[in-house]
Amino acid sequence: MKTVSIVNITSYTALELVRLLAQHPEFRVVSVTGRSAVGKRLEEIFPHLRAILPPPDQKTPAVDPALVVTEEPAQTELAFVCLPHAAAATAVVSLVERGIKVVDLSADFRLHDSKVYETWYTHPHPAPALLESAVYGLCERYREQVRLAPLVANPGCHSTAAILALTPALAAGIVGPNIIINSITGISGGGRTPVLAYHYPEANEDVWAYNLEGHRHLPEIVQELEAAAAIGGHPVEGGLRLTFVPHIAPMTRGILSTSYAELRADERGQVPTSEKICALYQGFYENEPFVHVVDQAPHTKWTVGSNHCFLHPIVDRRTQRLIVVACLDNLVKGASGQAIQNANLLCGLPEALGLAGLSMVP
Amino acid sequence: MKTVSIVNITSYTALELVRLLAQHPEFRVVSVTGRSAVGKRLEEIFPHLRAILPPPDQKTPAVDPALVVTEEPAQTELAFVCLPHAAAATAVVSLVERGIKVVDLSADFRLHDSKVYETWYTHPHPAPALLESAVYGLCERYREQVRLAPLVANPGCHSTAAILALTPALAAGIVGPNIIINSITGISGGGRTPVLAYHYPEANEDVWAYNLEGHRHLPEIVQELEAAAAIGGHPVEGGLRLTFVPHIAPMTRGILSTSYAELRADERGQVPTSEKICALYQGFYENEPFVHVVDQAPHTKWTVGSNHCFLHPIVDRRTQRLIVVACLDNLVKGASGQAIQNANLLCGLPEALGLAGLSMVP
Amino acid sequence: MKTVSIVNITSYTALELVRLLAQHPEFRVVSVTGRSAVGKRLEEIFPHLRAILPPPDQKTPAVDPALVVTEEPAQTELAFVCLPHAAAATAVVSLVERGIKVVDLSADFRLHDSKVYETWYTHPHPAPALLESAVYGLCERYREQVRLAPLVANPGCHSTAAILALTPALAAGIVGPNIIINSITGISGGGRTPVLAYHYPEANEDVWAYNLEGHRHLPEIVQELEAAAAIGGHPVEGGLRLTFVPHIAPMTRGILSTSYAELRADERGQVPTSEKICALYQGFYENEPFVHVVDQAPHTKWTVGSNHCFLHPIVDRRTQRLIVVACLDNLVKGASGQAIQNANLLCGLPEALGLAGLSMVP
Amino acid sequence: MKTVSIVNITSYTALELVRLLAQHPEFRVVSVTGRSAVGKRLEEIFPHLRAILPPPDQKTPAVDPALVVTEEPAQTELAFVCLPHAAAATAVVSLVERGIKVVDLSADFRLHDSKVYETWYTHPHPAPALLESAVYGLCERYREQVRLAPLVANPGCHSTAAILALTPALAAGIVGPNIIINSITGISGGGRTPVLAYHYPEANEDVWAYNLEGHRHLPEIVQELEAAAAIGGHPVEGGLRLTFVPHIAPMTRGILSTSYAELRADERGQVPTSEKICALYQGFYENEPFVHVVDQAPHTKWTVGSNHCFLHPIVDRRTQRLIVVACLDNLVKGASGQAIQNANLLCGLPEALGLAGLSMVP
Repeated sequence: MKTVSIVNITSYTALELVRLLAQHPEFRVVSVTGRSAVGKRLEEIFPHLRAILPPPDQKTPAVDPALVVTEEPAQTELAFVCLPHAAAATAVVSLVERGIKVVDLSADFRLHDSKVYETWYTHPHPAPALLESAVYGLCERYREQVRLAPLVANPGCHSTAAILALTPALAAGIVGPNIIINSITGISGGGRTPVLAYHYPEANEDVWAYNLEGHRHLPEIVQELEAAAAIGGHPVEGGLRLTFVPHIAPMTRGILSTSYAELRADERGQVPTSEKICALYQGFYENEPFVHVVDQAPHTKWTVGSNHCFLHPIVDRRTQRLIVVACLDNLVKGASGQAIQNANLLCGLPEALGLAGLSMVP
Repeated sequence: MKTVSIVNITSYTALELVRLLAQHPEFRVVSVTGRSAVGKRLEEIFPHLRAILPPPDQKTPAVDPALVVTEEPAQTELAFVCLPHAAAATAVVSLVERGIKVVDLSADFRLHDSKVYETWYTHPHPAPALLESAVYGLCERYREQVRLAPLVANPGCHSTAAILALTPALAAGIVGPNIIINSITGISGGGRTPVLAYHYPEANEDVWAYNLEGHRHLPEIVQELEAAAAIGGHPVEGGLRLTFVPHIAPMTRGILSTSYAELRADERGQVPTSEKICALYQGFYENEPFVHVVDQAPHTKWTVGSNHCFLHPIVDRRTQRLIVVACLDNLVKGASGQAIQNANLLCGLPEALGLAGLSMVP
Repeated sequence: MKTVSIVNITSYTALELVRLLAQHPEFRVVSVTGRSAVGKRLEEIFPHLRAILPPPDQKTPAVDPALVVTEEPAQTELAFVCLPHAAAATAVVSLVERGIKVVDLSADFRLHDSKVYETWYTHPHPAPALLESAVYGLCERYREQVRLAPLVANPGCHSTAAILALTPALAAGIVGPNIIINSITGISGGGRTPVLAYHYPEANEDVWAYNLEGHRHLPEIVQELEAAAAIGGHPVEGGLRLTFVPHIAPMTRGILSTSYAELRADERGQVPTSEKICALYQGFYENEPFVHVVDQAPHTKWTVGSNHCFLHPIVDRRTQRLIVVACLDNLVKGASGQAIQNANLLCGLPEALGLAGLSMVP
Repeated sequence: MKTVSIVNITSYTALELVRLLAQHPEFRVVSVTGRSAVGKRLEEIFPHLRAILPPPDQKTPAVDPALVVTEEPAQTELAFVCLPHAAAATAVVSLVERGIKVVDLSADFRLHDSKVYETWYTHPHPAPALLESAVYGLCERYREQVRLAPLVANPGCHSTAAILALTPALAAGIVGPNIIINSITGISGGGRTPVLAYHYPEANEDVWAYNLEGHRHLPEIVQELEAAAAIGGHPVEGGLRLTFVPHIAPMTRGILSTSYAELRADERGQVPTSEKICALYQGFYENEPFVHVVDQAPHTKWTVGSNHCFLHPIVDRRTQRLIVVACLDNLVKGASGQAIQNANLLCGLPEALGLAGLSMVP
């Protein structure tokens, strides 16, 4: 059994880690921290956690509901950091120095370039020295690097959907640099702190776009899609021209990302068919346990509570554009499930271990 | 008082007409039809309607809850047709022949070209002779024509949002032909007939895209936007290259449409600022009672139950694209409210009469 | 036109007053106050209010969206006080002293006995001298007293449903003192201040009971039901033995209250039938514009946005108990609509003026 | 590995069985039936099921997404019957004759008395001969009998909550026969067939009571609570006087049941305190893995997706009544989870095997 800590237990990503880790056969949560809850037992903060049972074939549960929240994480094999950006970096530095493997769920180590970070987060990067050793934790892309990394930057939720959706097309060079990503997310992505925008009577029965001036997942998406194109042998000259607009829909979980890209015509002026592109995508993700290419429009509900992502590429035959619909659960594949996928790799365990739970339908 | 009929009373658009007309000072609903409900009283089909009270300053309600459903509409001054396409055309022909003014809420008379209709609806147009006299009932565009028309084709819900959102930009020639419209709608737009996709446990907590191969509102949007560009003196050569993808979100009412268009640079290579475009839009809709250009991201909730539409144009400065977010209530400005707006014009009444109701927040 | 003020404009009850008053032909909102919003225009706090149009037959809207929030209410004919308890009493005293008629939406003047108030609100009543002149503003019961009152205590939302549900039975003496009221409310009843319990991801897809140790609407319900029994000639000896448990359901608006009472058998040991009791209720509320006795289970949706209340009494034949289901919109008949009903009476206007709006279905 | 069949795969309870069994280490679903889907693969009916992965430590998944629906169940060790009542009985007879252990999720074998069945289901019992050998599958009560039964009648969802809530009090003789149970359920309990009442725009933002004339879970609750009282040594003379009213709230899953009972005073005229009753309940359910007695009001959200039930007993000190709030997920502990709990017992496996999944919060 490998010991793990969760830093900032009062967040939704931490709570989701607890839910998933309680079923994990190889990890044991032995330390949880959280400023506002120091001294409380886990089951006091989240009363439903008193129902934790041991996983199959085991005598003791992987997470003890009576675990007491502390200020500092214990010396564990691995730590999950669920702090907001900036605060996360500080915690990560200290953990790495103590030789603890880290999966950081914040945005602090996702961007390779500290200047890009400063532009988007409006303060200097708190730990630029660590940037180089951090690996962007999209396992489908970087699983080999993750296995050896001291620090994994867990991707953003919108980013995960968008990057998985467009990587095969860009790597194959079938689309050009003009891309629009329209993403719709449930409200848990906004965190657990009550604010007026997410007050039930306000958010219920409402849809809206936000961060129209630029959302912080944009540079992360651009970085990874440009890398995908380059690795695929089709580098984007001049860089991607990418617009990303996130929206909120009245549901707790789920991201549905609809991407629009311009297909390149071949020498005879023709663009690939939907069937060809579907086959390309299926080949690309053939051996992936969590990415499923389907030939019908997927639903966010297909992913609720699970680590799965569904992709549906289709050609808009009137305009020769590629449309790709992607969906996943923002708290699982978009956060805590992916974090465990990374932790499995970091610890030399099978990548999908503890993540076989199906989505909850209905 | 002017007498009106509602054809196909068991639909949501008919029910919404009743709600709105019950407050209208000049219309009186004297005839309602509906195959499956013939012989029933209005309050038997919709029990909450027994609570109808007379409008201010009147003794009798504008809609009598005891009104009995018949098979054929009575001889009224005007009729609202709430039938599905094809069935609607047949009913409209008969009403027009009887000299009854018609607001048709179906798609049957929206497209000027019967061949385009046949392509999208996969059957020949049922009444091509009437197409010429029908006016597309977007009052903000065609109010003068509507006043004189025998037959008004009430616009589609997605179409209303998209056309209002993009008309000022195309009329002013500031954007090119490459357009993407990503629209999100509540579920009442799908009608009142129970189907698995809209069964509560399926549709709740779910977002999905639909009609990815092409939604029937697309040709209507293209027709009107190309006309807007031409009328504005900036005809789109070769036609628009427009992708339209509708999505469903778990709410009863509301459409949020996010449009993306390529801004044209001026001779110095510059595109207009958000402020300039906002001013352009505000000028364009200056005297419109129901279209409001705002400088923040609007919410569908701002429109629930009202005939109002909110628009927010903004420039994505990284890509020089124009983004326009539009929202409205699909059953009001996207259907029955707009139908009453048209009926007011057809009957020589003030356009906004009976439509002053504010949206319900929260 | 009569001038009115709204005190504490940033609350949901105030916002709902604005929505309803914007359609009222005789009131004009000329003053709005609110500590946290002083100096702001109404449309800055609630952007959708910029869409306010004049009501039918009028040139100017009844509420000007550009109205600026002040600290103190102006000298108007009437004021609506939307403050929390205790703060409300202080404001009310000052308004009454200035000769302004007051509808107080708080709980401060609902209980006749200041000792009962102190027990439930855990502080001495802030203005006991005013208690005597305050009238409990359930118009169906006290409309004659309301017409002459300087101060009306607008009933609580759960209370309105429960009192309307049980008054006919207690007044007629057909039930005994053992009563259980199980009430379910939407979340807007909890106010506009964001708290974790009403944070969307927490409250969505959740039902729970609250205030199991005693909810503050209980003494108000007991006071009014005991009075109803006494006035009906069937005083409850020893007082009612009433349990009231409120619950939260994931919706914005609506209260559904299910009451259970023990039917008294007649000399032959028989209890009345459902039909007889239904007739009794229909007679009791015969001329009420807003109370509707129906012979099927009513839905909260039948009331959304309207001032209507639906009642369904039925006998549980296996146990001889009376069950009464009542529903209404907590923000309208349970708060702001009822407040306008009271204001109409206070100002000598027709009681239903401006309240004819139908509920929004779907 | 033990083989199992699922009869009527197109129901929600069957789908939930698949979700739970996909994580079960000892069962393997080898046969699924369903008239309307014969010949289809599981993943065609439920596309999200193509994401099924093997459970930890196993090579093949416990449910194969490519499994083809047949008309008749195969010869398996055990079958889950998810048919509606009457149809279920016929299927059960045939399965039992083939020597297959059966967990029947319908109501057909829950009532011991075929006359009571006939009264409530308005047709003669289809297989009265089997009634005697059927065990009511509330494991917390009958686990020893279940182990040896050929046929287990899985309890109803409302019934499970109500019986667990009131059994300790009745068994201990601390309450009398006058009981009211007010239950609120999510909509998945109504099944997967689309009907107008559960059409999203109708059911969303709505709460209502149903089956006010008597719900079919009532006789089941009475049967089991009277048995509990008798076994506890406190038989209810004359039988329980029990009113049960179910309600629908706009959510997919969850039941919250609030029970009201009259506490018996001791010789000194005193009733037990909340603390004493809480201790009594905790003792009663001390070793139960799925029943948790808590000292705060529980939330249905605490149970979503899990087999857990939370109970909160409290004394209403003003009336000396006992209030017990119970909650669970209607599709898990109220149906398919409990069915697996029974199946584990029937097959000699640990009772909680495969049911350790935590509820999904948020």
